[in-house]
Amino acid sequence: MGSLRIGLCQVDVVVGAIDTNVGLVLDALATAEEARCDVAVFPELTVPGYPPEDLVYKARFVEDNVAAVDRIAEATGDCVAVVGYVDVERNPDGTPAADDGRPILLNAAAVCAGGRVVGRYVKHELPNYDVFDEKRYFTAGTEFPLWSIAGVTVGISICEDLWIDGGPVNVLADGGAQMVININASPWRQGKVEARERVINRRIAETATPIAYLNLVGGQDELVFDGTSEVRDADGELVARAGQFVEHVHVADFEVTAPKPTTLPVTTVTTRPSASQEGLPPVLEPLLGPDEELWDALVLGARDYVHNNGFTDICFGLSGGIDSALTAAIAAEALGPEHVHAVMMPSRYSSDHSVTDSEKLCQNLGIDARVVAIEPAHGAFLDMLAPSFGDDPPGLTEENLQSRIRGVTLMALANKFGWLVLTTGNKSELAVGYSTLYGDTAGAYAVIKDLWKLQVYEQAEAYNRRAGREVIPASIITKAPSAELRPDQRDDQSLPPYEVLDPMLVELVERNRTAADLVADGHDPEIVTRIARLVDIAEFKRRQSPLGTRVSRRAFGRDRRMPVTNRYRGNPRPPTG
Amino acid sequence: MGSLRIGLCQVDVVVGAIDTNVGLVLDALATAEEARCDVAVFPELTVPGYPPEDLVYKARFVEDNVAAVDRIAEATGDCVAVVGYVDVERNPDGTPAADDGRPILLNAAAVCAGGRVVGRYVKHELPNYDVFDEKRYFTAGTEFPLWSIAGVTVGISICEDLWIDGGPVNVLADGGAQMVININASPWRQGKVEARERVINRRIAETATPIAYLNLVGGQDELVFDGTSEVRDADGELVARAGQFVEHVHVADFEVTAPKPTTLPVTTVTTRPSASQEGLPPVLEPLLGPDEELWDALVLGARDYVHNNGFTDICFGLSGGIDSALTAAIAAEALGPEHVHAVMMPSRYSSDHSVTDSEKLCQNLGIDARVVAIEPAHGAFLDMLAPSFGDDPPGLTEENLQSRIRGVTLMALANKFGWLVLTTGNKSELAVGYSTLYGDTAGAYAVIKDLWKLQVYEQAEAYNRRAGREVIPASIITKAPSAELRPDQRDDQSLPPYEVLDPMLVELVERNRTAADLVADGHDPEIVTRIARLVDIAEFKRRQSPLGTRVSRRAFGRDRRMPVTNRYRGNPRPPTG
Repeated sequence: MGSLRIGLCQVDVVVGAIDTNVGLVLDALATAEEARCDVAVFPELTVPGYPPEDLVYKARFVEDNVAAVDRIAEATGDCVAVVGYVDVERNPDGTPAADDGRPILLNAAAVCAGGRVVGRYVKHELPNYDVFDEKRYFTAGTEFPLWSIAGVTVGISICEDLWIDGGPVNVLADGGAQMVININASPWRQGKVEARERVINRRIAETATPIAYLNLVGGQDELVFDGTSEVRDADGELVARAGQFVEHVHVADFEVTAPKPTTLPVTTVTTRPSASQEGLPPVLEPLLGPDEELWDALVLGARDYVHNNGFTDICFGLSGGIDSALTAAIAAEALGPEHVHAVMMPSRYSSDHSVTDSEKLCQNLGIDARVVAIEPAHGAFLDMLAPSFGDDPPGLTEENLQSRIRGVTLMALANKFGWLVLTTGNKSELAVGYSTLYGDTAGAYAVIKDLWKLQVYEQAEAYNRRAGREVIPASIITKAPSAELRPDQRDDQSLPPYEVLDPMLVELVERNRTAADLVADGHDPEIVTRIARLVDIAEFKRRQSPLGTRVSRRAFGRDRRMPVTNRYRGNPRPPTG
Repeated sequence: MGSLRIGLCQVDVVVGAIDTNVGLVLDALATAEEARCDVAVFPELTVPGYPPEDLVYKARFVEDNVAAVDRIAEATGDCVAVVGYVDVERNPDGTPAADDGRPILLNAAAVCAGGRVVGRYVKHELPNYDVFDEKRYFTAGTEFPLWSIAGVTVGISICEDLWIDGGPVNVLADGGAQMVININASPWRQGKVEARERVINRRIAETATPIAYLNLVGGQDELVFDGTSEVRDADGELVARAGQFVEHVHVADFEVTAPKPTTLPVTTVTTRPSASQEGLPPVLEPLLGPDEELWDALVLGARDYVHNNGFTDICFGLSGGIDSALTAAIAAEALGPEHVHAVMMPSRYSSDHSVTDSEKLCQNLGIDARVVAIEPAHGAFLDMLAPSFGDDPPGLTEENLQSRIRGVTLMALANKFGWLVLTTGNKSELAVGYSTLYGDTAGAYAVIKDLWKLQVYEQAEAYNRRAGREVIPASIITKAPSAELRPDQRDDQSLPPYEVLDPMLVELVERNRTAADLVADGHDPEIVTRIARLVDIAEFKRRQSPLGTRVSRRAFGRDRRMPVTNRYRGNPRPPTG
């Protein structure tokens, strides 16, 4: 047999921040070197950050990222660094090669040791579905190199390469790898950790080869990455697991398979004998439960968005409802309560308990709170519009007006004090367009946009449970949902109860079903036809709504690219023919 | 030799409107049949509309579109219909086949005649760059069928298949096609018609085979399609051209090459002798000049967006500046002046001539105009915010406030009267973020968002020239650009003159260059560094800004997918090492 000592380097790199990212790598590398690791592994596209999107079309960005890999390589000694970057195919004269005017870019891992880049692996399988656009940018690799590290023959692969039955990981193992490293920028969603474990176990069952799985940690626009890196031995036993949603250099010793005949080319990277025979006791960080995992994802997604966009403080509209209460709790944990500014903006229709509940929440969270009553602007607009509106009775226009006055108020405070505005809408609202564009959708980041309303309740209750007290007052959780834009308004006057609505929306939004499908399932035709239509016509609002953390299998955003102009209704058809 | 009579059917189909689209096809088919065409050709993805985006993930949508092809086929007789649709691979039992849980979808052309679907061609080359995501949805074709139509051996291909040197069109011609049909949904941009002609001529030069090029017409979200279908003979001579930006069934007779040995499978579709020996005189619609072509693109893009989203009337903020004036002129032509509602919203800082110039423009265009002074709301907000703002002197916050009050006012009018709001910002503003989110960016469609400021001037002047009078008053064209949000404000106080700014922005936005690249070109380092940074940090505003017609090689939108969280600045680096 043989063994290796690996440093699983879960770094929270930021897209575009090449120098910062290099700094994070060098720090982690020093830690791994000090721990006498044989190899320190870093996430997919470590240097540019993931996903860099159209930044890779900037030739200078790609050059800067290649140069940064050289800087990392210079710092390496006997501990091998496996670092993700964008490589570019070159002509014999060193200039970037092009295909029909577009540069040929590669999603690559540099293998660095002894002060230099020893070689590279290029990702074979390029995902181009869901949130992924990798065929837009990258050309697939065609080679399967192996690497000799501390006497062990190692295969290196990248993310999607792991997911393909009989794919690159199998080729590397069959070709002689005694273990396979897989570096990732694998976005988290509910159930993703379990899905990943199934895939890793399937690959190991097929190849009888240990796999070291390393994942990015951090938030990037809509995506959040959970880390949760791990090593499993040739029997599929877990021998190392790093924490979830935390930066971490996790050092582990593990046994590899016995040397096999190699049918793939092997490059010798290092020959220093491994320290792993010491056999560090395995450290397996526990997995979080589903509620905590979701909570940590939302906290990290919000924190990284705010901080990485150069802000420290946020403000938001606190209505007395559950959505803004949960958003407040997440923001307080993500940024520290002293950086969170709640703004209560009562109108002529706001209930008294909305303000008192809100004040209590702010005290419990220790966040800044202020009240800006919107009546002066409300009255002024109604006067300004009276010549146009005439005697038309008040309706949706006037409801939207109040919401927009709140949006303007929040933006003014944010502009004045350099805060970022968080929005508080949930996925159910966003799905059916139960929101006011430029009103409650106005803001830079939508913290809970991918939580169905019922999940908002679950998260609020789980939060209080963990805290052991009603940080979010029970009255906020139990009262009937209302936008409070007209007297005695309640959500269930316009929408079915969320217990009925949410499961319907899951089918329509996350499972690509149509009204006709739901009718065939036995749902009420009138209701599903109306709800499906609301979902379709709200697309124009969603396109102008802020980013927010993706936590589901299909979030609004890059994940679901529906046309705005779309006349398909998917309604049941009368039988034809 | 031999010849064919073709019906080039430029129909303006709408995404998702399957029944409407079938109706358009049947009408055009009847026209082609009546003209004794041998073949009537329709655009790529005729039935679902282009691009259907994630609609194709709805299994029922795909089934509905397949059923619609059958309805079209039933109506065919001796004139062959070539119709674009989404096909799905099936298992032996007829259920949709799947690859890793995803259905296997094909961008296909149905060949219909004699009341049935005779066969299909599947697109080989799937564009996945710029605005295109076809590898997200489709699996590439692998077969090269030929079709015998009225005694002529015909090849059928789809869009990108034409653009590849030695690609599918060459294979079809080399395999025995006496002419090749290419059906398209090829988005227009400036210079696209010339680029297409070069490609068609290159294919003909390689294959000595006539090509019939059929393109979609109409607007769909960001894209506009120009039609401009044509037929060129084996010498590359133009023998038919349909109009630009108009629906059209253009009938043409043309000679094909002499029969060649066929090495590809041939399916006989029709045997009725062609009427084309009559030799209809060729009709070549003239090409528009560059200014008119751009104008027609903007008019059609705006018209189809408004109408296809179910609106008849629009409103917009008319400021007295050139951007809103040009938008007004485009809207009046697109929708009819009686459907256009200009709203002047003077503030305490508005100049008198802004209102008088605006009133004159409205008279000239014959559009509705109203004035809503924003002072009441402006004063009310300042009072409401005074406790928070204290003695802080007025600045950007107060400027944004005015713009947002205008946004709220427009939205209230739109909500009340069922209008759609058009925004008036140009590409230069959008690039550097010289706009107020939820203020002047509030609206559903941004008519001139892909025109640089200098192009806005050119279009306004060209429009007046064509009209033979100053429909857009000269004073609007000649005055210094100003947002009029503080006393004596002018754009050039914050930005370089547009003559300097626009060419810089073209490099940064359309050519993926960086500040460091522009410094290397000799630009002022301080200015380009500042401008490049503005472009980067304005990404969060652009993500929440409305759709608008793409007319350039790289528009903001699907075409340019930059991360919001992006710390790359691309600044010149001090020399290292």
